[in-house]
Amino acid sequence: MKNQEDQFKKVISHAKEYGFIFQSSEIYDGLSAVYDYGQNGTELKKNIRNYWWKAMVQLNDNIVGIDAAIFMHPTTWKASGHVDAFNDPLIDNKDSKKRYRADVLIEDHVAKIEGKIEKEVKKAAKRFGEAFDKQQFLETNPRVVKYQEDAQAILKRMGKSLEEENLADVKALIEELEITCPVSGSRNWTDVKQFNLMFGTQIGASADSSTQVYLRPETAQGIFVNFLNVQKTGRMKIPFGIAQTGKAFRNEIVARQFIFRQREFEQMEMQFFVQPGSQKKWYEEWKEKRMLWHLSLGMGEDNYRFHDHEKLAHYADAAADIEFRFPFGFKELEGIHSRTDFDLSSHEEYSGKKLQYFDPESKESYVPYVVETSIGLDRMFLAVFSNSLQEEELEEGNSRTVLRLPAVLAPFKVAILPLLKRDGLPELAKEIVDDLKWDMAVTYDEKDAVGRRYRRQDANGTPFCITVDHQSLEDKTVTIRHRDSMKQERVALSDIKAIILQEVAVSNWLKRLQ
Amino acid sequence: MKNQEDQFKKVISHAKEYGFIFQSSEIYDGLSAVYDYGQNGTELKKNIRNYWWKAMVQLNDNIVGIDAAIFMHPTTWKASGHVDAFNDPLIDNKDSKKRYRADVLIEDHVAKIEGKIEKEVKKAAKRFGEAFDKQQFLETNPRVVKYQEDAQAILKRMGKSLEEENLADVKALIEELEITCPVSGSRNWTDVKQFNLMFGTQIGASADSSTQVYLRPETAQGIFVNFLNVQKTGRMKIPFGIAQTGKAFRNEIVARQFIFRQREFEQMEMQFFVQPGSQKKWYEEWKEKRMLWHLSLGMGEDNYRFHDHEKLAHYADAAADIEFRFPFGFKELEGIHSRTDFDLSSHEEYSGKKLQYFDPESKESYVPYVVETSIGLDRMFLAVFSNSLQEEELEEGNSRTVLRLPAVLAPFKVAILPLLKRDGLPELAKEIVDDLKWDMAVTYDEKDAVGRRYRRQDANGTPFCITVDHQSLEDKTVTIRHRDSMKQERVALSDIKAIILQEVAVSNWLKRLQ
Repeated sequence: MKNQEDQFKKVISHAKEYGFIFQSSEIYDGLSAVYDYGQNGTELKKNIRNYWWKAMVQLNDNIVGIDAAIFMHPTTWKASGHVDAFNDPLIDNKDSKKRYRADVLIEDHVAKIEGKIEKEVKKAAKRFGEAFDKQQFLETNPRVVKYQEDAQAILKRMGKSLEEENLADVKALIEELEITCPVSGSRNWTDVKQFNLMFGTQIGASADSSTQVYLRPETAQGIFVNFLNVQKTGRMKIPFGIAQTGKAFRNEIVARQFIFRQREFEQMEMQFFVQPGSQKKWYEEWKEKRMLWHLSLGMGEDNYRFHDHEKLAHYADAAADIEFRFPFGFKELEGIHSRTDFDLSSHEEYSGKKLQYFDPESKESYVPYVVETSIGLDRMFLAVFSNSLQEEELEEGNSRTVLRLPAVLAPFKVAILPLLKRDGLPELAKEIVDDLKWDMAVTYDEKDAVGRRYRRQDANGTPFCITVDHQSLEDKTVTIRHRDSMKQERVALSDIKAIILQEVAVSNWLKRLQ
Repeated sequence: MKNQEDQFKKVISHAKEYGFIFQSSEIYDGLSAVYDYGQNGTELKKNIRNYWWKAMVQLNDNIVGIDAAIFMHPTTWKASGHVDAFNDPLIDNKDSKKRYRADVLIEDHVAKIEGKIEKEVKKAAKRFGEAFDKQQFLETNPRVVKYQEDAQAILKRMGKSLEEENLADVKALIEELEITCPVSGSRNWTDVKQFNLMFGTQIGASADSSTQVYLRPETAQGIFVNFLNVQKTGRMKIPFGIAQTGKAFRNEIVARQFIFRQREFEQMEMQFFVQPGSQKKWYEEWKEKRMLWHLSLGMGEDNYRFHDHEKLAHYADAAADIEFRFPFGFKELEGIHSRTDFDLSSHEEYSGKKLQYFDPESKESYVPYVVETSIGLDRMFLAVFSNSLQEEELEEGNSRTVLRLPAVLAPFKVAILPLLKRDGLPELAKEIVDDLKWDMAVTYDEKDAVGRRYRRQDANGTPFCITVDHQSLEDKTVTIRHRDSMKQERVALSDIKAIILQEVAVSNWLKRLQ
């Protein structure tokens, strides 16, 4: 646990130090749960988005993309259910006037119980030394067993109350557990109330009424309302998909874990429209295809797992997450959902427009079923970044920090380094930059000893360094250094481009999906 | 004038019919001045963004990109001046309760006067036939001269009053001109008031106070507040630039001209930080470089012109627009502004943080000056799209609609068409798709006669069509058809990829910037 926390702290500070992620508006002390991407982060994020888009849209003849606006007609969110049911249960402390998510207060209480268990385990481990069997202790120590039972009972009751919208019982639970406000220390609580997570704003400015609109809380609805426009103008035949990347917004009350849960975030979603009855087949196929996409990046099979939902959302008849091993444990990275015809039917009802597909073979019209794949771009960024950041022991007690980003995603593909700042080496190095820059992202660095420059590029995730030395002037060869192996080899200047493109070209990585 | 209107209507309907641009949330009758990009429009927009990004960031060693959030700390907009001075003058009609932009009411009145001039011109043209000299008529006909003088006087007075914030006089002008409400027909007006164009929303949900934030009205400030973060973590030396693309939002009261002025739009901005005193040189250099970028797309030199600002914004010491010949005349496409140290100094003042650059050579610290290039992505889309859409007369009284997009920007680079839907032609065609799709956006079409499919691809802007026929099965050759010349030639299957990549590769187009 401590190790995880340490690793997560390293991730956050490395992200800042090397220009990947800054706190938003940092000079004004930031805006909670909002982040800006720096010069390296922007490229990494763009490369992830591009890799997804090409895999989903460019490689699939029957998937096209759209780019719908963040502002949508407000009735969209009535039809989708967000106006009525996209809520968090909130509670105020009357003394501090602070507001909390009721479920988080309870979860924090449970975390304290788990802390007590942890403490008992440590004490016992110290007492028994090598003879200590943790599993046995957890199962037999009466005090610890009681703690575990308490924790489970609390979570179960909370889950049930929330599911049944029994907010009075959520409050009762908080009172029974004698949970106090972290600020005032008092137990003087208001009732629990539902709070909608959508950001609202006013559009237009007519004197009588401006229109209340929302910042979209998900990109999916932009695809549903455009379903027929795309199908008709693109002459699409079912099964076909519509993909989209773009910002979405949720007014999270408790936003933690860095960029994992932000108020402003980016989604990469694809809605696949299928014949009713065939959705199970396509659901299984997309689960498999999406996992293959993740694995193509080579970040380790062990870091992924499926989590099938037992409790389904009102619109779904099957749902699974692809979970990734984040620094804080396995968490949802992507969702694959069989959404039935819920969304299209609901939009039919609210708009009064038919949203049906005419099947040219069966000569019948129907509302298609939908299988969705939905991944958070920022989460994907965090997965790639945190997994790539490694502290590596080298020979002679040295170590290095290396960001082993998949080469296809690295912000810069190659750094060109003149060994010295004289003798025409910078000039030759810049010629190389000018030759490569048309085809890839290149960086140039002439400051400090070359060893330090290697370390800097390691920390930036640059997969290759090209060093230009005196021999280069004579025989037109350079040293190419590989980030991961740190191996160096002498290659002809004229071969550099082909060598690097082979390793970093999106098309070559995509071929792993075949 | 009529021709322009017709052409513009064609642009809008073609954009809809071929999946480039849809009205936002169309099934709910749309949201005013907000648009969604369809399957072809999304690719075109993406390709424009990519072409800009590569030209600005990838090719320039001293420019890096960032991706700041749409939400920023609210003090940002105090410092930038938007809270106090980003306003439109609005007036309500007390009878209809409708609200109008006061300046637009007056401009519409002036347009009516211009309509009268137009009418007189037409009458005279009819009367005098071939002998009619329009210029002479405009200069000598007493009634028409009076109209012109009136119109000029009105615009001049309005401009002065708005500049001096003399809103009482703006109202007086409306009353003197006896302007009536288009809805109620009455002249029962309220006073003119300033209305801020920023969209506001509430972030967080503490019981006592949530924070009022704004959707950013421009992306530039995201760059300024991150100036030091990027400079330090990226080890940037002045002069250097920070580029950004992203959404911005303005609550326009009168939003007209399709995607030219939207409430939600995307900017592509670059802020170039320079030593005070050198800004004029960089300003001239960036004017030239940006024009070169536009010209590299080959859309015709005559369609661009510079417009130097005579009246400068409070933050600028020089400013020019690159104007483009839109279907509704020459209008601003891009702005190049020498912004002095206004923004950074103001953020220093409001944040209390130093935003200075330490010059390692002179050993002095200073607040850099800034030269900005700022282009609207949606406007650039409209420029490219409207300029490319052509109705072409062919032989024998035929015509075709062709979208002559620069090949580097086209949504699909090539369409693969089997001549017939049998004899193994579709199979071979699909093999070609599977070979090309890793490297470019390919589309496949087997429906209708091949001539119709060519027309469809012309209308989509696809620069190449590959037709697979019986001969292809025998000798592994295909027909390649060029969109613009309609010329067809027989080429070896194995040469297709190289032929097309040569014409469409971003790197080859970028080399025109050399």
